[in-house]
Amino acid sequence: MELFNNLSPLDHRYYLSSPDLAKELRNYLSEEAVIRSEALAEGALVKALYKAGLCSLDVVKEVEEAVLNICPQEVYEEEQKTQHNIRALVNCIRNHVSDDAKPWVHFTATSLDIMDSAASYRYKKVTEEVVLKRLIDLEKTLIKLARENAQVLQMGRTHGQHAVPITFGFALALYVERLGERIVFINEASQKLTAKLAGAVGAYNASSLVVENPLQLEADYALELGLKPAAISTQIVPPEATLDLFHGYVSAFGVLANLADDMRHLQRSEIGEVFEYFGKTQVGSSTMPHKRNPWNFEHVKSLWKSFMPRMTTIYMDQISEHQRDLSNSASARFYGEIIAGLCLAAERLNRVLSRIRVDEEAMIRNFNQSAQMVIAEPLYILLADVGHPDAHECVRQLTLESQKTQKTLWQLIEEDKELVAMLSKLPVERLDVIKDPRKYTGLSAQKTMMICKKWENMIEEV
Amino acid sequence: MELFNNLSPLDHRYYLSSPDLAKELRNYLSEEAVIRSEALAEGALVKALYKAGLCSLDVVKEVEEAVLNICPQEVYEEEQKTQHNIRALVNCIRNHVSDDAKPWVHFTATSLDIMDSAASYRYKKVTEEVVLKRLIDLEKTLIKLARENAQVLQMGRTHGQHAVPITFGFALALYVERLGERIVFINEASQKLTAKLAGAVGAYNASSLVVENPLQLEADYALELGLKPAAISTQIVPPEATLDLFHGYVSAFGVLANLADDMRHLQRSEIGEVFEYFGKTQVGSSTMPHKRNPWNFEHVKSLWKSFMPRMTTIYMDQISEHQRDLSNSASARFYGEIIAGLCLAAERLNRVLSRIRVDEEAMIRNFNQSAQMVIAEPLYILLADVGHPDAHECVRQLTLESQKTQKTLWQLIEEDKELVAMLSKLPVERLDVIKDPRKYTGLSAQKTMMICKKWENMIEEV
Amino acid sequence: MELFNNLSPLDHRYYLSSPDLAKELRNYLSEEAVIRSEALAEGALVKALYKAGLCSLDVVKEVEEAVLNICPQEVYEEEQKTQHNIRALVNCIRNHVSDDAKPWVHFTATSLDIMDSAASYRYKKVTEEVVLKRLIDLEKTLIKLARENAQVLQMGRTHGQHAVPITFGFALALYVERLGERIVFINEASQKLTAKLAGAVGAYNASSLVVENPLQLEADYALELGLKPAAISTQIVPPEATLDLFHGYVSAFGVLANLADDMRHLQRSEIGEVFEYFGKTQVGSSTMPHKRNPWNFEHVKSLWKSFMPRMTTIYMDQISEHQRDLSNSASARFYGEIIAGLCLAAERLNRVLSRIRVDEEAMIRNFNQSAQMVIAEPLYILLADVGHPDAHECVRQLTLESQKTQKTLWQLIEEDKELVAMLSKLPVERLDVIKDPRKYTGLSAQKTMMICKKWENMIEEV
Amino acid sequence: MELFNNLSPLDHRYYLSSPDLAKELRNYLSEEAVIRSEALAEGALVKALYKAGLCSLDVVKEVEEAVLNICPQEVYEEEQKTQHNIRALVNCIRNHVSDDAKPWVHFTATSLDIMDSAASYRYKKVTEEVVLKRLIDLEKTLIKLARENAQVLQMGRTHGQHAVPITFGFALALYVERLGERIVFINEASQKLTAKLAGAVGAYNASSLVVENPLQLEADYALELGLKPAAISTQIVPPEATLDLFHGYVSAFGVLANLADDMRHLQRSEIGEVFEYFGKTQVGSSTMPHKRNPWNFEHVKSLWKSFMPRMTTIYMDQISEHQRDLSNSASARFYGEIIAGLCLAAERLNRVLSRIRVDEEAMIRNFNQSAQMVIAEPLYILLADVGHPDAHECVRQLTLESQKTQKTLWQLIEEDKELVAMLSKLPVERLDVIKDPRKYTGLSAQKTMMICKKWENMIEEV
Repeated sequence: MELFNNLSPLDHRYYLSSPDLAKELRNYLSEEAVIRSEALAEGALVKALYKAGLCSLDVVKEVEEAVLNICPQEVYEEEQKTQHNIRALVNCIRNHVSDDAKPWVHFTATSLDIMDSAASYRYKKVTEEVVLKRLIDLEKTLIKLARENAQVLQMGRTHGQHAVPITFGFALALYVERLGERIVFINEASQKLTAKLAGAVGAYNASSLVVENPLQLEADYALELGLKPAAISTQIVPPEATLDLFHGYVSAFGVLANLADDMRHLQRSEIGEVFEYFGKTQVGSSTMPHKRNPWNFEHVKSLWKSFMPRMTTIYMDQISEHQRDLSNSASARFYGEIIAGLCLAAERLNRVLSRIRVDEEAMIRNFNQSAQMVIAEPLYILLADVGHPDAHECVRQLTLESQKTQKTLWQLIEEDKELVAMLSKLPVERLDVIKDPRKYTGLSAQKTMMICKKWENMIEEV
Repeated sequence: MELFNNLSPLDHRYYLSSPDLAKELRNYLSEEAVIRSEALAEGALVKALYKAGLCSLDVVKEVEEAVLNICPQEVYEEEQKTQHNIRALVNCIRNHVSDDAKPWVHFTATSLDIMDSAASYRYKKVTEEVVLKRLIDLEKTLIKLARENAQVLQMGRTHGQHAVPITFGFALALYVERLGERIVFINEASQKLTAKLAGAVGAYNASSLVVENPLQLEADYALELGLKPAAISTQIVPPEATLDLFHGYVSAFGVLANLADDMRHLQRSEIGEVFEYFGKTQVGSSTMPHKRNPWNFEHVKSLWKSFMPRMTTIYMDQISEHQRDLSNSASARFYGEIIAGLCLAAERLNRVLSRIRVDEEAMIRNFNQSAQMVIAEPLYILLADVGHPDAHECVRQLTLESQKTQKTLWQLIEEDKELVAMLSKLPVERLDVIKDPRKYTGLSAQKTMMICKKWENMIEEV
Repeated sequence: MELFNNLSPLDHRYYLSSPDLAKELRNYLSEEAVIRSEALAEGALVKALYKAGLCSLDVVKEVEEAVLNICPQEVYEEEQKTQHNIRALVNCIRNHVSDDAKPWVHFTATSLDIMDSAASYRYKKVTEEVVLKRLIDLEKTLIKLARENAQVLQMGRTHGQHAVPITFGFALALYVERLGERIVFINEASQKLTAKLAGAVGAYNASSLVVENPLQLEADYALELGLKPAAISTQIVPPEATLDLFHGYVSAFGVLANLADDMRHLQRSEIGEVFEYFGKTQVGSSTMPHKRNPWNFEHVKSLWKSFMPRMTTIYMDQISEHQRDLSNSASARFYGEIIAGLCLAAERLNRVLSRIRVDEEAMIRNFNQSAQMVIAEPLYILLADVGHPDAHECVRQLTLESQKTQKTLWQLIEEDKELVAMLSKLPVERLDVIKDPRKYTGLSAQKTMMICKKWENMIEEV
Repeated sequence: MELFNNLSPLDHRYYLSSPDLAKELRNYLSEEAVIRSEALAEGALVKALYKAGLCSLDVVKEVEEAVLNICPQEVYEEEQKTQHNIRALVNCIRNHVSDDAKPWVHFTATSLDIMDSAASYRYKKVTEEVVLKRLIDLEKTLIKLARENAQVLQMGRTHGQHAVPITFGFALALYVERLGERIVFINEASQKLTAKLAGAVGAYNASSLVVENPLQLEADYALELGLKPAAISTQIVPPEATLDLFHGYVSAFGVLANLADDMRHLQRSEIGEVFEYFGKTQVGSSTMPHKRNPWNFEHVKSLWKSFMPRMTTIYMDQISEHQRDLSNSASARFYGEIIAGLCLAAERLNRVLSRIRVDEEAMIRNFNQSAQMVIAEPLYILLADVGHPDAHECVRQLTLESQKTQKTLWQLIEEDKELVAMLSKLPVERLDVIKDPRKYTGLSAQKTMMICKKWENMIEEV
């Protein structure tokens, strides 16, 4: 099977692990997709020329048909001769049309009028059709999971240390917000991608020879591809629109990696609050048959490490000398891999979160380990509230005392008349959280529901 | 002088080369500025507590005064004891107020409620007061320069090769657009920075003990700092707002680097179209007294190489375990240096562009070198326009012929009856660009003026 | 105090947290150190010229004295005029010597003959005097700790899951090896740094005018600085020697970060095997008085995130056009910060590891949690050893059975006559590890001692 | 054709542009190669077990044959069940051998004993068989080119400005040295790659149950793969050996990128000293038929931009928690692409340099442009040599005067009696370079030959 001869894991291992996704991505990111989109752009150009009164509707029809029938093989064979990919494409299209139509193929355009516009078209399409779809699927799973766990007590952790309690749903709601917000960013960035039809150096040198209004010609061409024209360009469109979109992708990837990282830590043997689904025939380790590893979460983090640094390439590609040098050409051919990596990670994460096992008992067990110490914070707050001049230091001393004597904070308080007196100023129900620290979850549940509701509405609009 | 003992070039060499800028930056990015902004946030908190009816106006006044008088030295000495920077600050403030006011200092807050909010405050302020100001100054210089050179003929270059002509103003207009657009991006991103007052794990555990509406308390606090509250947070605000802003900075830096790169190439000995100002006592080389180097342009590119890769740190800092680990703390302390680098580059670029020397004669000389070959493009367009079925290949052959025979393209055309016949179908004025290729600048001048006008208006609104 | 006005944390916060280290680093990495080392190189040049018979010993003495008295302030003032840092330095030296000596100052040299050689000198010195010293101190602490814990049982963890046991010393021995090996790498790389005295474009144009053997002159000059001459250079020395050294630094930083990361996870509330020392007046959290955070370990990881990505700058600086462009100048001025970051991290890690608290009881408690499951591996090995055709699968089924029935693996074995029969073929002592899984630590202790011994010897030689 | 459906340009476009290279790379870097190398490692393990007296020679023979017949398809199908790639491989091998042999397959090993060792094996092999071969081919081409152009006058350029002359061979000799030195680095680094057979947590837990000397077993295993055993390992080999090798690759890539960058600038229209070969049917631009672009040089730089930043991934992968987490697994699967990128760049560069066109006349033309100014440096050196107390400033003034008056430096000297008097102290032949600046090339030719000779010898030894 050819597949195993490929060098990129995207073209073998990860192709096989996510075949449906891989096939969808091929429609926008494979070399075939690149060539088809460029052929499509050549077709769009002829339509714009027709609108400008330069060629007939028959020419448009001829070219449109030719364009749909272009095959990559043919273009590559022609490129052997021309050593120039767009000239090869143009020759192939010309070979399929009549002499009448020939002059209008690629008329007034420079290669990059086609290539950059086609790239914007592909990135916009793949965002709409694949990326956002996968991210929204994941977002929905997160919302569902957050809602389900909105009331599930979990110890909050900072520095890996028990802090004060939250609910597990609240922990997830953070990712609902962060991912949701990235979805909006990516969607907006994809709308700002542009096409150009401004010729070899961006000054409409060629098109201004033959049409009255080259800006209109460019706008018509862009519109055919569902894009807006660049405000100004050189041989290439200014790189920032693409850069922003990839910043969106890469920063969304960071959100996924953070989420995956949290989950794999919650699956640690000593914590054991969350578990990946584990199949009956699945093997955890080739030598330790008892292992149950959070390997999907680890996988997502690993993909992020592979793709995030590639953002540096795109920052470097901002620099192109004068009206353009070609040193961003090969590098840009690899951009699409970042998109594939992000989609793989999103799909994997969605799959594993969809059937994750949450161990509420473990969450309570872990909470109980520090329940008495958790009281420290509300105690200091309440003491301050009733006017203790140095509540934080007072409670800090109590915690040291507690660790030394093994007495609970509450025991120590009861032994201290002054503190008892101060606390007695409070309505008794305000001491609830001191007596039952499980109640000290603040607005965890309420905020979880707010965020879930917000994003349920928001993703409808994307 | 202490300065020379510093390790960072920002604190010695570049401090000295841009002292006014450096002093402005200190107000937002120095350690003193960090501490002052955190003290300010503590003050804002007490104001919000007052609004919530928790403390008296007298307390607010006491704390506000204490906060203004905090000095970094004092906080650092306290930190020796506490090993905790915010607890140190809080202790210092408490030392300056009455026992009545003491309990309200930092009341219900966690350190990061202060630190992250203060960071958002500083980044928003420094963007408004320093970064945008410098970028807009540069933008204005670019607009002026683009306008002045809107009609100045320059050879367009792709791949470092002569392509077809533009005007120098048009080349600059590209940067007017790109920089302008980044200014808008940065401005918008800075407006999205957030504050938080949600406590140790983001769930309002503490504040919900003592106020009816913790979200209102947080909103009041944020408002005092000119910020909006985060939609949800852990111990820290979600990192993406800051990440987006720094993406704005770093991508603006890329625009500056590209511009600088173009300029230094235009100053190459063989090109010589643009020159940095050169002072009377200035030395170009310690050993080659005749050298006139584009060292400021090189400097800008070099700064970009130093600061752009640091974006990777900020992407890595997206990952913080559970409700937060501290591994983004030291790294985040260095973020401000990227801002300093960007401002230094912008100021330097503005300074050198403000008195750049443009050699129009050199531009014409360079243009003339390839003027005859430039005709190739319009010739092929016009031939195609009058129906030549293979105009591109025909002209490509002519250029090879021209190189072999040293005849001009126009001479070769005149020798070819068929071509003469075809071209005679065209109105004679359309052959103008063939006869005088200097006219083949398309919409260069027109587009330049459009872009300049657009951004003159736009930057008014930032 | 000036310090708090600085922008770089290296020049305020981390300067104050490690004042002794900071002062040592100043001697090699501050702007004053840069200027002093360049003055020293100018002195070395005059000595080499004397050796070549060009100038008198009196000139050498004059220049050497002048060179020692150069102050940065003076050079910077002169640079205001020259706009060229080395010409400024040269002028200052010349101002301090007689007219006889003046012509020999900087004679035949280009600025970079001085600057690049001085940089090699500084990086070699700081490596020898500061970096290696700190790394070796840390290595010694690690060796001590590994030896002390060579027999201390700890659960080995892969994927954050309990795997099979090791000893804590063994876990540390890995870092003894990895850090030791990086020390060797850095030491060797620092020995390969080079000087040059080959003039403006590296072809000895100037020096070959006045000396018989310019290569000898260069070698003498390099020797004065304790360096070897570059095999060939342009205006600058080839960048790879410096690049390799910084790869050594950054990869050693990675080892430190990995170690710190392991430790902070071992301090997690649920694991609690290792603890940072915690002072009596220290505050863990401004709002949760009970917190004991692994903040020093987190700090080390955070520093790594700040400095590691800067390696990209140095890779970018490999590219310098033709005989050199200046776009690596400003960027290279920041390289030293990576060294400072590494030393800070090493010192911090050494400090905290020197008084770390290891909780052996917690290690046993955690081990016991999975002790029964640990048996799975040796069981499958022993079954295979006595010829079970599918031992891995057999044991995997047993572990699932064990989880379902809550019986131990040993219980299940004893219920299975076939297995009992197979295992009875083994000498009874080989079943020890099945009965007492604490013994299943393989060569942990032995390997720990081997590695410690190896590196005790090795670091003597560095 | 399947190829065009692939996402990675390595698996379509660059596969097709360098098919022979691509096929060679497949033997080491494709998924099939990965699986075959892992099967090979399983075979090596059984051989080592035989040496240790554990199994019979018949078992070895059976397994060896099974191992050679493993096909990727089969392993992937099995992985569907196990969800574990090495357990799948082991199952497949076991399916092909007798029950007697079954227990010895993978005996005592953990997956990473196989995977990491196989990776070291592949990286060592691909380095020896493909990478070094391509780099040495390029090195030979550079040596040839440097020798041929050892005497060819070229203007040296710093800051893009004419400096003082060199020869073109000398400019190339720098790359002979830099590339040669990287070849040595890569070769040495590849020799340091290691294997491991230390089990699940690196402590030989399993193997020490069944053999007397687990270290010997590991050494035998490593030797079978042509590797040395790691000094100590966890579940994985310490990452630094691989990291160093990739540093070698990436830094060699930087040398190639610098060389390509120089060449493309030398092909600028205004410079025109060097030209890529241009085929008869080749098209420079789809719209500007006259263009001759340095597109191969641009391509090499672009590949570097794509692959260099991926080094950050490998630095990040240094961190693996405790005895290993899996978050370096997916990321490491992409490492091989860097090797492919480097080989593609080396082959492309070799191809284009092998038939590069050097325009010596253009080099002279460009030199002449500044020939008179070039004199400045030797003039100042000679004046200083005869005791002028301020020769640099004197000549700097003359150059300003020359620019103002359009007189040559030599004319101005002859008008100045004092200078004439000073210079008359010199033997007349030392003024040669002043009168004929073409002679001012220093040791360019001599050094070129030295470096070429050195590396002709050195690469014999690699």
